[in-house]
Amino acid sequence: MNIFLDAMGGDHAPYEIIKGAIDAIKEYDVSLTLVGQRSVIEAELSKYEYPTDKIEILHAETVIENTEEPAMAIRRKPDSSLVVALDEMKNRENAVLISAGSTGALLSGGLLKLGRIKGIKRPALAATLPKSDGVFVLIDTGANADCKPEYLEQFAQLGKIYSENVLGKKNPGIGLVNIGAEAKKGNSLVKASYELLAAGEFNFLGNVEARDIPETKADVLVCDGFTGNIVLKLTEGIAEYLLKGIKTSIMSNSKGKIGGMLIKGNLKSFKKQFDYAEYGGAPFLGVKGGIIKAHGSSDAFAIKNAIRQSIKFIENDVLQKITDNVKKMEA
Amino acid sequence: MNIFLDAMGGDHAPYEIIKGAIDAIKEYDVSLTLVGQRSVIEAELSKYEYPTDKIEILHAETVIENTEEPAMAIRRKPDSSLVVALDEMKNRENAVLISAGSTGALLSGGLLKLGRIKGIKRPALAATLPKSDGVFVLIDTGANADCKPEYLEQFAQLGKIYSENVLGKKNPGIGLVNIGAEAKKGNSLVKASYELLAAGEFNFLGNVEARDIPETKADVLVCDGFTGNIVLKLTEGIAEYLLKGIKTSIMSNSKGKIGGMLIKGNLKSFKKQFDYAEYGGAPFLGVKGGIIKAHGSSDAFAIKNAIRQSIKFIENDVLQKITDNVKKMEA
Repeated sequence: MNIFLDAMGGDHAPYEIIKGAIDAIKEYDVSLTLVGQRSVIEAELSKYEYPTDKIEILHAETVIENTEEPAMAIRRKPDSSLVVALDEMKNRENAVLISAGSTGALLSGGLLKLGRIKGIKRPALAATLPKSDGVFVLIDTGANADCKPEYLEQFAQLGKIYSENVLGKKNPGIGLVNIGAEAKKGNSLVKASYELLAAGEFNFLGNVEARDIPETKADVLVCDGFTGNIVLKLTEGIAEYLLKGIKTSIMSNSKGKIGGMLIKGNLKSFKKQFDYAEYGGAPFLGVKGGIIKAHGSSDAFAIKNAIRQSIKFIENDVLQKITDNVKKMEA
Repeated sequence: MNIFLDAMGGDHAPYEIIKGAIDAIKEYDVSLTLVGQRSVIEAELSKYEYPTDKIEILHAETVIENTEEPAMAIRRKPDSSLVVALDEMKNRENAVLISAGSTGALLSGGLLKLGRIKGIKRPALAATLPKSDGVFVLIDTGANADCKPEYLEQFAQLGKIYSENVLGKKNPGIGLVNIGAEAKKGNSLVKASYELLAAGEFNFLGNVEARDIPETKADVLVCDGFTGNIVLKLTEGIAEYLLKGIKTSIMSNSKGKIGGMLIKGNLKSFKKQFDYAEYGGAPFLGVKGGIIKAHGSSDAFAIKNAIRQSIKFIENDVLQKITDNVKKMEA
């Protein structure tokens, strides 16, 4: 098992990234490779007591910033933590790279350096979101802004395999994000995608209206990357806006402040489910290797969960299952 | 001023619709025409004390159900409250029709019976949503699932005129709903639309990411009807899901229940801003007449606000301003 962790990517790198790595090797039976400036990583590591044989360092001189044009940065910075990690991954079996750095750079780097699994039309970024009875996988959440129906059909396959093997769902239900429940609703892309999903070998539950997403029975929600990114980010934005507004209105007078103290504990557990950190990162599915995008503002807890997710990803042989499944669909 | 109210459309018709009409004529200096089965309307009206000269009844034998195929229902039910109202509107100046019935039937009925304002490529459905410093107009929210860049440019014009004349914004800021803040982000439709909006005579604020919508500085957010419907319905769904979940978690123990009682008052005013009823209905902009879609579950308060909105729509001559503006853009 080869788990690479980009020690230099993310708002709280390297401190929180490395703390997350330390927490993970203590909690799980796993070894990690931290990628980045050796001196910086060693300085951080020296703050902790840990089984030193479980952490390797892979030196990389530079880091790709969020502001850089992704594809160009990949070509121009062969010595960046991202590119060094991807180059090393090519020589390893069962490898996963976790990065909280530039999403664009991670996606185009993954594509350029690792390539697509044979038969995959477009790799897609999947995210795990909360719903009333657990979680669901939303795919694509931004890798492909313009899509064709056959891409969405494949997103459904990728999401199904991930849901089964990493989230442990049996025969996951597939939903299509749409603006109406009836089969004929939606734009031309969604109408054509509906036909493919209904005809395919899926536990297809039909269209899911945006209003019903938080209560959906589906385990996997399929959409183009533009729509998926809107759904993902708006969910984050509305939840943050509401919880902030509620807090402000509670604290606006002393009666409310007392009430606030009394409900604090109850709210905490509920709010947890809207914390992306609970769910690890977003896997980039369809490339020849494990790529997991951790949230830019990931803390140690989020990184530890992304490492746990990577272990499941490798243990359950997700890449092989995608490869076999695509072969089967082509035949 | 000719305000027609579909007395038979909506989950709570005719009771709440007619109660809203009564409340409105008592609060505003306005006369209304209730459209639907005379006997039913008269029976409802008989429950109230009101200035009888302010309410007319326009008889219609049938009603179009949400389950009917819109365009077909319009042709097959000339005696429906919707079609009777639209036919009458053609003979009247300064006319607005409010309906809480089938959205599809209202939109295709409006198009078929009233037609587009000259130069309008695609009429669009606009909605008013809450944000941290007030409200914004989201357009299109579902009339056009497949769009071209020039449609979005015109949606911006329609939204601008509505924001200025009904919501009273001066030189409203226009935002483009997108998956990134940078100019080159998004799908092909949005990239091309960005160019048009940036080149047009707008106070264009650029792209607005979904995450930032609740805090946006823009007064009008432009998008295709598929994306707009997702944003509108997901906002509703997430808000409902969160508020329900928070309530449940608060009520899960006695300590929380006491706290809940103490914060109840504070939350009430905050929750109000997520009540669609506050904002009246969604205007269908670009047709030759005022069409306002009230929420299907509208109560008397929502209907009263839709009537107030209709008064502003007529008083500020929105239709004429759209006509003039389109002429100007074409010249």
